[in-house]
Amino acid sequence: MPNISQRGQIMPPSPIRKLVPYAEAAKKKGVTVYHLNIGQPDIETPQPVLDAVRHSTFKILDYSHSAGNESYRRKLISYYKKFDITVDHTEIIVTTGGSEAILFGFMACLDPGDEVIVPEPFYANYNGFATEANINIVPVTSSIDTGFALPPIADFEKKITPKTKAILICNPNNPTGYLYSRAEMEVLKEICLKHNLFLFSDEAYREFCYDGENISAMNLTGMDNHVVVFDTISKRYSACGARIGAVVTHNRTILDSVMKFAQARLSPPSFAQIAAEAAVDLPDNYFDAIKAEYQSRRDTLVSLLNKIPGVFCPNPGGAFYAMARLPIDDADKFCQWLLESFSYEEQTVMLSPATGFYATPGLGKQEVRLAYVINKESITKAMKTLEKALEIYPGKI
Amino acid sequence: MPNISQRGQIMPPSPIRKLVPYAEAAKKKGVTVYHLNIGQPDIETPQPVLDAVRHSTFKILDYSHSAGNESYRRKLISYYKKFDITVDHTEIIVTTGGSEAILFGFMACLDPGDEVIVPEPFYANYNGFATEANINIVPVTSSIDTGFALPPIADFEKKITPKTKAILICNPNNPTGYLYSRAEMEVLKEICLKHNLFLFSDEAYREFCYDGENISAMNLTGMDNHVVVFDTISKRYSACGARIGAVVTHNRTILDSVMKFAQARLSPPSFAQIAAEAAVDLPDNYFDAIKAEYQSRRDTLVSLLNKIPGVFCPNPGGAFYAMARLPIDDADKFCQWLLESFSYEEQTVMLSPATGFYATPGLGKQEVRLAYVINKESITKAMKTLEKALEIYPGKI
Repeated sequence: MPNISQRGQIMPPSPIRKLVPYAEAAKKKGVTVYHLNIGQPDIETPQPVLDAVRHSTFKILDYSHSAGNESYRRKLISYYKKFDITVDHTEIIVTTGGSEAILFGFMACLDPGDEVIVPEPFYANYNGFATEANINIVPVTSSIDTGFALPPIADFEKKITPKTKAILICNPNNPTGYLYSRAEMEVLKEICLKHNLFLFSDEAYREFCYDGENISAMNLTGMDNHVVVFDTISKRYSACGARIGAVVTHNRTILDSVMKFAQARLSPPSFAQIAAEAAVDLPDNYFDAIKAEYQSRRDTLVSLLNKIPGVFCPNPGGAFYAMARLPIDDADKFCQWLLESFSYEEQTVMLSPATGFYATPGLGKQEVRLAYVINKESITKAMKTLEKALEIYPGKI
Repeated sequence: MPNISQRGQIMPPSPIRKLVPYAEAAKKKGVTVYHLNIGQPDIETPQPVLDAVRHSTFKILDYSHSAGNESYRRKLISYYKKFDITVDHTEIIVTTGGSEAILFGFMACLDPGDEVIVPEPFYANYNGFATEANINIVPVTSSIDTGFALPPIADFEKKITPKTKAILICNPNNPTGYLYSRAEMEVLKEICLKHNLFLFSDEAYREFCYDGENISAMNLTGMDNHVVVFDTISKRYSACGARIGAVVTHNRTILDSVMKFAQARLSPPSFAQIAAEAAVDLPDNYFDAIKAEYQSRRDTLVSLLNKIPGVFCPNPGGAFYAMARLPIDDADKFCQWLLESFSYEEQTVMLSPATGFYATPGLGKQEVRLAYVINKESITKAMKTLEKALEIYPGKI
């Protein structure tokens, strides 16, 4: 029997999904599991977005342009304009989800062995895409004590080597919910210009900002050849299953290269591009109610968390995640124990251990990520359940 | 300005799409262009397949299982059963098109620098996926004079090195239309077992066999840990834009590895999985009319080609492609000349130069690929036009 590749062996499994069997077992026992572990929004996909597909009349489900339908890309110009991002349709390549945008960016800009600096904790799947592209993620640690603010410039510079090709941020951040300030974005610009690095900016949660304004990397001046934005409609329109994202950049060399990766896989999904195009036409006030709902959930979650003895949760400015420090020995053990050995009034809570979001071994052992993608009533019950759990957890410290 | 990667630079552009600007210019001049250059079927997508999506009633377009909806995978068991392929739903991982299946297979089984042997001419995008995975394609040349039959076993063995991990075939073949016989499949089995290689089998055109039976690599006995099938619904149901494919294998180690790649990109497209699942329910006779239509087109095309002086076209047993040898100096020049400098009764023909399908430099210069995805009337006019072109082409030999 032939051996599979080293790459296929070291490819990291999803750190979030490993708890799924325990959740399934809990449910089989009749326990209600509050899912605070995944970023699947419970908000309904806007009706006009689904209707655009359901009312379509084409006869052949054919390939689209490899860069995505031109009509969709032209519409996106007006979408980005609302965020003071000026691009034309040739500066947007539609991808199969934000996932593919990240992979294309890695492959077009970095060679095997090259390094990308990422503030940790970070979105765990970056590890997977780095393994696929045979590049190395070099973490710069941000701390829960500062609310996960951008680490000092010196911390970045300590990590820069001749192999460093890029810095990757996620703004607003998954998993921390941190929203980078204009001053922090200017710091990133300074580092990238000084050391001639690309700035990759994952802006999946652009709409979800509660305290302050979202500064896109595309808003930085003098960075046209450095900035590459990874975008997606997944969270924006509760359309995770569409698998529609985009690479957005002014850098023509990158666009030409990404286009070759896009041609190899022929085209992004056709049904979902119809949905995505319809979404651009949603009224500007569509996000008002959604944002108000998430902000209110955040306020409830953060306030209840901080009332639990020994728990600290900085107030996240964006996205729909919060990171909390708990008085526990080991987040992985605790999250499994919650599902396997605990219930309160036949309820328990599914959380993401933060260890999967850190690249530095040993970090995040007292932290968990909570996604506030369930309604406030459920959040309130979940926090009561968590409080009760922490009272009796054997590994409490 | 930072440099992009070497990988991003050497990534091959689509050899087929480079002629598109010339076709567009010809059309602007009022010339009718017969598109024999691409594998986009003109057959309508079956109505029940489109209706399944249009009549769907879900409220949230959410992520599916990373391996694809279980309901779809369970249905595929019965689909494969019709071809004497016995698999369970855990042996199928649904991918975003056949493209992603190929990339996942390469990444899971080969490390950077490893080699996969592929009979040439071959589907040009294999080069792109190999570049992405940093692996090397080693060609074994098949000849138009034998109708592109499998090269002799000795030719394969000459190419095997310690880096060789797999043989990749496409059956029925794109671009040659060749359908491998049972004896040839047994030869491949023998080589793979003797040298402990994976057998990757791209079976995108499984339904389209006109002279003889399709032997899936999954039909080979004693090869459970060697065979990996790359599948897609694109051609089968004229659903190229769905972007639904699959990795199918009995090898559990590969399945576990591919699953990690699948998890990193979260899920295949949700709308299209609804379509794909509905397609499995199409009546068995759905393919009868489609196959009859393609076979009749093939017969027309091949017969007309062979009547043109100096042209040789072996009769392809499957898929919807034919390769022809023309009395020309250079296929790339000729195909461009057809679009740029020639017309007959305000018509011309767009063909694919075969050079893009060979890895060995210099091969395929007198060959072109013709996709019979247009109706017979158009095929007849196109062949007349081609005949007239060959009469006056300055580079005729």
